[in-house]
Amino acid sequence: MIDILDRVRCKELQSKIVTAEEAAAYIKPGMNIGTSGFTPSGYPKAVPLALAERMKKDPFKINLWTGASTGQELDGALGEVHGIQFRMPYQTNKVLRNEINKGEMDYCDLHLSESAQLARYGYMGGKIDVAIVEACAITEEGNIIPTTSMGNSASYVQTADVVIVEVNTTQPLELEGMHDVYVPLDPPHRLPIPIVKTNDRIGTSYIPCTPDKIKFIVPCDIKDHTRPFGEIDQDAKRMSELFVEFLHAEIKAGRMPKNLLPLQSGVGNVANAVISGFINSDFKDLSVYTEVIQDGMFDLIDAGKLNFASGTALSPSPEGLERFYRNIKEYRKHIMLRPEEISNSPEVVRRIGVLGMNTAIEADIYGNVNSTHIMGTKMMNGIGGSGDFARNAYLTTFFTASTAKNGLISSIVPMCSHIDHTEHDVDIIVTEQGLADLRGLAPKTRALEVINKCAHPDYRPMLLDYFERADAATKHAQTPHIIKEALSWHERFIETGSMKK
Amino acid sequence: MIDILDRVRCKELQSKIVTAEEAAAYIKPGMNIGTSGFTPSGYPKAVPLALAERMKKDPFKINLWTGASTGQELDGALGEVHGIQFRMPYQTNKVLRNEINKGEMDYCDLHLSESAQLARYGYMGGKIDVAIVEACAITEEGNIIPTTSMGNSASYVQTADVVIVEVNTTQPLELEGMHDVYVPLDPPHRLPIPIVKTNDRIGTSYIPCTPDKIKFIVPCDIKDHTRPFGEIDQDAKRMSELFVEFLHAEIKAGRMPKNLLPLQSGVGNVANAVISGFINSDFKDLSVYTEVIQDGMFDLIDAGKLNFASGTALSPSPEGLERFYRNIKEYRKHIMLRPEEISNSPEVVRRIGVLGMNTAIEADIYGNVNSTHIMGTKMMNGIGGSGDFARNAYLTTFFTASTAKNGLISSIVPMCSHIDHTEHDVDIIVTEQGLADLRGLAPKTRALEVINKCAHPDYRPMLLDYFERADAATKHAQTPHIIKEALSWHERFIETGSMKK
Repeated sequence: MIDILDRVRCKELQSKIVTAEEAAAYIKPGMNIGTSGFTPSGYPKAVPLALAERMKKDPFKINLWTGASTGQELDGALGEVHGIQFRMPYQTNKVLRNEINKGEMDYCDLHLSESAQLARYGYMGGKIDVAIVEACAITEEGNIIPTTSMGNSASYVQTADVVIVEVNTTQPLELEGMHDVYVPLDPPHRLPIPIVKTNDRIGTSYIPCTPDKIKFIVPCDIKDHTRPFGEIDQDAKRMSELFVEFLHAEIKAGRMPKNLLPLQSGVGNVANAVISGFINSDFKDLSVYTEVIQDGMFDLIDAGKLNFASGTALSPSPEGLERFYRNIKEYRKHIMLRPEEISNSPEVVRRIGVLGMNTAIEADIYGNVNSTHIMGTKMMNGIGGSGDFARNAYLTTFFTASTAKNGLISSIVPMCSHIDHTEHDVDIIVTEQGLADLRGLAPKTRALEVINKCAHPDYRPMLLDYFERADAATKHAQTPHIIKEALSWHERFIETGSMKK
Repeated sequence: MIDILDRVRCKELQSKIVTAEEAAAYIKPGMNIGTSGFTPSGYPKAVPLALAERMKKDPFKINLWTGASTGQELDGALGEVHGIQFRMPYQTNKVLRNEINKGEMDYCDLHLSESAQLARYGYMGGKIDVAIVEACAITEEGNIIPTTSMGNSASYVQTADVVIVEVNTTQPLELEGMHDVYVPLDPPHRLPIPIVKTNDRIGTSYIPCTPDKIKFIVPCDIKDHTRPFGEIDQDAKRMSELFVEFLHAEIKAGRMPKNLLPLQSGVGNVANAVISGFINSDFKDLSVYTEVIQDGMFDLIDAGKLNFASGTALSPSPEGLERFYRNIKEYRKHIMLRPEEISNSPEVVRRIGVLGMNTAIEADIYGNVNSTHIMGTKMMNGIGGSGDFARNAYLTTFFTASTAKNGLISSIVPMCSHIDHTEHDVDIIVTEQGLADLRGLAPKTRALEVINKCAHPDYRPMLLDYFERADAATKHAQTPHIIKEALSWHERFIETGSMKK
């Protein structure tokens, strides 16, 4: 109890310290609950667990608005008791994915940079009834010091009727000062977001709040349950090499500064592997403007190659998180966490010229990309921030292994079964087979580049055959397709378990 | 000759006045030519006509980079002599469309806001050899005063080795002062674009240039060949009414200021009709932040309802152009023309909270939109600026009549045959049947909203049947589809000439 009192520096708020069960009891069926959390970092844990226990006895549902995916104690626990009616803007949880695809949960998959503003605009079905945010501490004035993620916390606190703060005593107080909290005004009053360099500080180190808005404070001592990364495989290594090679050529062509431009990489294994590959390059004075800060970036900081990383969340492996905590005094010089509306801001991404690196589920021969739907129908995770970066980056690259399911699926297809990023947004596609540079190409030329550079040899002749027949069949077409056959590879997989003939 | 000398105020440049033939003779096969022009406004005419004459005798091809579509004397004349190898970023010409679909011309269809920067970045196949821009006048310092469009002229002049200026003596000198020319620095040096209101002036009234860069000056007395608008039909009227009604409800719900937010409307009949419909509303103090300024906006200015319109081109009917010229002293108080990189800037569009209104070729039940490809393969015009606005607007609306070709085509389909705007970007779909509000909805709910509100009664039962069977067949899917059947409506049209069974 001593530690928690130290962390609630506003004396009048100390009387609002309650158990998780007491706070959870405040939540009513059908409420819109906005929480902190972005990846399994900085999400509330004690109150959601208590809420899930309550729902077990007395089933009901709430609407859950978060920063992005969260951890087991929030998405997992509430998902397991079927406690979520509506979920936005992103998730990666197995239980939720199942509920979503079954149609038992309404899932609104949004561009992350837009999620806070859509909530503020009142587009998401009413306003936020209760915000639940994890904090390191509460200041004398009632302001909230966030933990390992920023996500949408600041906007949710601003918009909510009532705030519940989970003070997590496992989160080091050295996190204070690593955040840059800035909530834009809404139109017609919005001003330029004044970031011109990745390390520009434009806001406060806390989420502005007042004591009267905080209803309950709940102590919590559960650590972030971050996820381990898979071993970096040969395919990912090869993609990273190809991309580094390409960047060298861009520098040589005068299209890129020697220290590149700010890097962005998506969540997960491939993105982490690509970033890790930079360790073997001779690039230095690098900067990062991204969503999530993962292990590969710690490696680059340690190697003296990465000057500054701006993100909205730390999303390391469990070992990475320990490593971060151990060296927090050093890492905090190089890392800043911002609201996802700012980390993913189209305005800033375009201005500073981010190099966007994201992963695709599949890409088609014309350069359209599917990031979300397996075989066009089943939700994998969601678009996340990939659209914020892909549309606005200086250079937009998508990575995918050329095949999936032991070669039974080709990641390069005649036509994507679902499209999240259109041909207009995709500059480069990289598979372990090669790198296709689509800049300035018309569709037919793009098709040959994608097929010849990126497709797996097992599928290349089939793709060439499709393209040539489509071109012959639709002589007068910018983008040749045989409409009857365009999705036949997916059909075949659904029917036979393989895209091969 | 007197008039032209008056307009070339830089004395040392007067010796560079030549005939169109002399200037056209400078152009070599395979050159990248960057021109002024956005819609049939402010494009060079004399030099392209002379170039086309030259190509008739001695066939060769150039690469043509413009602002967007242009007029007959440029796209038409060069298209007719097969003089264009590569074309970007947008076009609407019948001859070009044919060449593009035949594969005789490479067409790179780009987000208009990105076209100038992609040229500057060096992504479009080398740099610009010659810029040809239409001007009202050239200042004492050699700076260029543009005419009825800004487009990409400033960036092309900045990037080109050599500049040819067509001084068009039919363009009134009162155009001087109506332009706001601002070319952003490129990353890592770019700064915020400091526009917070539609009428903020941030640049110069001329395209910066120096006398040494100008190689030739060509007098021209051919007027802009703007296009007439079609009669506003009942469907367009109904869509406009539905949208105005919706906006009233948004104001009532507290989600919109009484004078709305800055309006954007796409090029063409439907967009013009929707804007015209505002004349019958009680909205006032309106503002516009858009690409093209069309007749409907003159109506709103005349009615005292529209305070200010920022665009990149005047794109009125021939009568509208005459009306503009007649009252230019009054209209110039209310109109400003900016480079399309600024008129369509995602940064500004998002900041000031534009209401984006564009037209769709088709939309699918989940809210994806096809703006470019007829039956998934044939290029109509191009994406133009629709993506710049759709992704970043405060509210993104697409308009389409519910059917095309006398009812043989349903504009609402199970799955779009080509996707330019994804479900993540589309808030509202309007047909003459009704308005679907997709904000905050998960895909299955979106599908019912689109089918029930927007589909034509002839196709509604077929769409419901498809959706219900897809939902049953793919029980566990966020976005139900029967992959085998998703594009069958297009197949049927291709085979039978009708989407009806």
